[in-house]
Amino acid sequence: MAELQTLNNSDLQEYYSALSYNYKEFQNKNLRLDMSRGKPCTEQLDLSLGLIDCLSSSDYLAADGIDCRNYGGIDGLPEIKKLCAEILEVKPTEIIVDGNSSLTLMHDLVARAILHCLPDSETPWGKLPKIKFLCPSPGYDRHFAICEYFGIEMIRIDYLSDGPDMDQVEKLVAADSAIKGIWCVPKYSNPTGITYSDAIVTRLAKMSTKAPDFRIFWDNAYALHHLTDTPDSLQNILTACQKANHPNRCFIFASTSKISFPGAGIAMLASSETNIAWLKKQMLIQTLGPDKLNQLRHIRFFKNLSGIENHMRRHAAIIKPKFDLVLNILQTQLAVKNLCSWSTPQGGYFINLNTQPGCAKKVVTMAAEAGVVLTSAGATFPYGLDPLDQNIRIAPTLPSLLDLKQAAELLTLCINLISTEEELRKRGL
Amino acid sequence: MAELQTLNNSDLQEYYSALSYNYKEFQNKNLRLDMSRGKPCTEQLDLSLGLIDCLSSSDYLAADGIDCRNYGGIDGLPEIKKLCAEILEVKPTEIIVDGNSSLTLMHDLVARAILHCLPDSETPWGKLPKIKFLCPSPGYDRHFAICEYFGIEMIRIDYLSDGPDMDQVEKLVAADSAIKGIWCVPKYSNPTGITYSDAIVTRLAKMSTKAPDFRIFWDNAYALHHLTDTPDSLQNILTACQKANHPNRCFIFASTSKISFPGAGIAMLASSETNIAWLKKQMLIQTLGPDKLNQLRHIRFFKNLSGIENHMRRHAAIIKPKFDLVLNILQTQLAVKNLCSWSTPQGGYFINLNTQPGCAKKVVTMAAEAGVVLTSAGATFPYGLDPLDQNIRIAPTLPSLLDLKQAAELLTLCINLISTEEELRKRGL
Repeated sequence: MAELQTLNNSDLQEYYSALSYNYKEFQNKNLRLDMSRGKPCTEQLDLSLGLIDCLSSSDYLAADGIDCRNYGGIDGLPEIKKLCAEILEVKPTEIIVDGNSSLTLMHDLVARAILHCLPDSETPWGKLPKIKFLCPSPGYDRHFAICEYFGIEMIRIDYLSDGPDMDQVEKLVAADSAIKGIWCVPKYSNPTGITYSDAIVTRLAKMSTKAPDFRIFWDNAYALHHLTDTPDSLQNILTACQKANHPNRCFIFASTSKISFPGAGIAMLASSETNIAWLKKQMLIQTLGPDKLNQLRHIRFFKNLSGIENHMRRHAAIIKPKFDLVLNILQTQLAVKNLCSWSTPQGGYFINLNTQPGCAKKVVTMAAEAGVVLTSAGATFPYGLDPLDQNIRIAPTLPSLLDLKQAAELLTLCINLISTEEELRKRGL
Repeated sequence: MAELQTLNNSDLQEYYSALSYNYKEFQNKNLRLDMSRGKPCTEQLDLSLGLIDCLSSSDYLAADGIDCRNYGGIDGLPEIKKLCAEILEVKPTEIIVDGNSSLTLMHDLVARAILHCLPDSETPWGKLPKIKFLCPSPGYDRHFAICEYFGIEMIRIDYLSDGPDMDQVEKLVAADSAIKGIWCVPKYSNPTGITYSDAIVTRLAKMSTKAPDFRIFWDNAYALHHLTDTPDSLQNILTACQKANHPNRCFIFASTSKISFPGAGIAMLASSETNIAWLKKQMLIQTLGPDKLNQLRHIRFFKNLSGIENHMRRHAAIIKPKFDLVLNILQTQLAVKNLCSWSTPQGGYFINLNTQPGCAKKVVTMAAEAGVVLTSAGATFPYGLDPLDQNIRIAPTLPSLLDLKQAAELLTLCINLISTEEELRKRGL
């Protein structure tokens, strides 16, 4: 179908009536569907069922005889450190393996930098009049929530096709010592699906920052979460920073939340040995160590990196059809030209959709009123403010294919409806 | 034996020679024993072996259908909240059940109070020129480490027979608004073994504090850790605070670290509903929830409070003989009158021993030189400073009875030796 603008008034009104009728039909279905969060579905969780009972009452010792039941081991079991180091392509001396949440590692790291001097910090961030973080957007709402919680001013950075707009980034960090960090989801980014190009990674590592203690918060949440057989590759930021003579610049985060179990996985943090030593010393005040039995479970179940990679192919086999279904519905139902654009991600958990400016909030509200919950419009931007009110994050993994079909059809219907309404309004009809 | 002071010079020198000879014999044994930390022994860990494999690939749903594998549930599974509420004698609405470390809950709570306003706080503690905590001593070194880490000034409070010296406490908190908290291990206290009397609990709840946001950090680590069939009872501090019209004054902490597994247990925090609501809101920035599978394991394995209580009797059966052995050796080997005093705890993990002033450091060093590691002298006091250098914490649970016998005999030998040396020095011999 051509652009809405090319329809005559009568055709436009007829089209609007048909859409309105369809929307009422949807409302009558009393749907209760959720496409709001990047949650694995039951079939995905079932892939890791063996994790639950892979240990036994005679199997609780780690390879070097460590009794995983007792206290100790602040940075994780040696064998899990080795495996996680392989995942993140770092050395075992550059990693800490912790409990079930990488979000906790990020939150706590920001808190530590506020209350204590990071290596390279002249003063704890909390003693400075203002701290700012760069936030490539759309991005992950929980990163932004951490900033807001700690009173860190967020500066929005645009995304280009291969990562954040580095011209903006470089200019800002060179000029302002209050800018202490940047949030990055560098691979299959939440929600854009973008993987940072080598050029972007290199510029991030090399750029001059006014703050000597500037840190890249590199949330590599989807490192292994490919949807195709030709996965994106991401340059190693730790190596890049070391080469660029900024060895302590980056903290890398990941977890098995979307590999094993979201609620009962293991989280990891990689960085320079200097940062790791600093962090271990701080963590010793906070804990006597992570749950080593759960780390041992992950070793027993996955065995090695290739075990995890095979496992990830089984995840992809379950969720790829869901992505395809949604993309297909977007393609066919958003037939009006130039109404929307969307990503075709090669991995990760989201489809990123941009409506015409000014429509996202209305679409999300309208979908909710017919029983489909989407991520709140604006949530993917700092302070919840999407400047163009156009970004919608679609999380297709949790619903069944049947539910997803309905949810995606409703979503596209709402977009068509709101866009047509807008066009009618413009024409004073 | 009479007091050392009553021996004549020649008898004293002869006694000293015999002791020195025995010490050399010990050194020749090349012992490698550790009585330094309150760690459960292997036999204790074996009591909970069933916890490792009590779930299965068909058992991962909580009572109300919650899939414990997935995200969610910031304050813990409803059934574990119910069980933990029974342990701490509070309502399920007054509790949060978290990951494997109550130390983390304490550390993070202090960090939150520094960075954000507690209910009743006029300003985050970190914005004040100084914060102080009261530290009944000897106490738990990790509490003191948290204070030191966050730059909180520690004020030492003496212990009387039934708890901290409340005259000191009341006077201080009434006069100084910078005093924001007190650390308490109210039952079978680490290391004194004291259980706070009802009178002490009531005074803590009732006392007037200059700081409106004064908080009691009530680390009830040994709530169920009895060594006898006539356990101490502890008044409920939450109820006492509510009655005294200071409903938000206390935070109660506990864990199953010394019930199930130290490394893979569950931790809990109880407080007023106001504090709990405040805390949950803060935790949502930090995590998507605790490991619910491990919480479910604890429900399946222990079933209910009486299951835990029976389990604790099995712990006592293993460790009571260790306490008895050490107490017996102290009684028989420290035969010289008035050389030492020590606790006879009815529960908990420690025997508290006081030497003559000025001897503790030397004793601990001397024992280490013969291969027995004790808790560092002074560690049980703020800043590691025991004003009289006399306190030694004995942790008898980890070593075997055979090892413990050697370790306790060496300890008493070192005490006798150092004390005799001291007496010789006094006489100029």
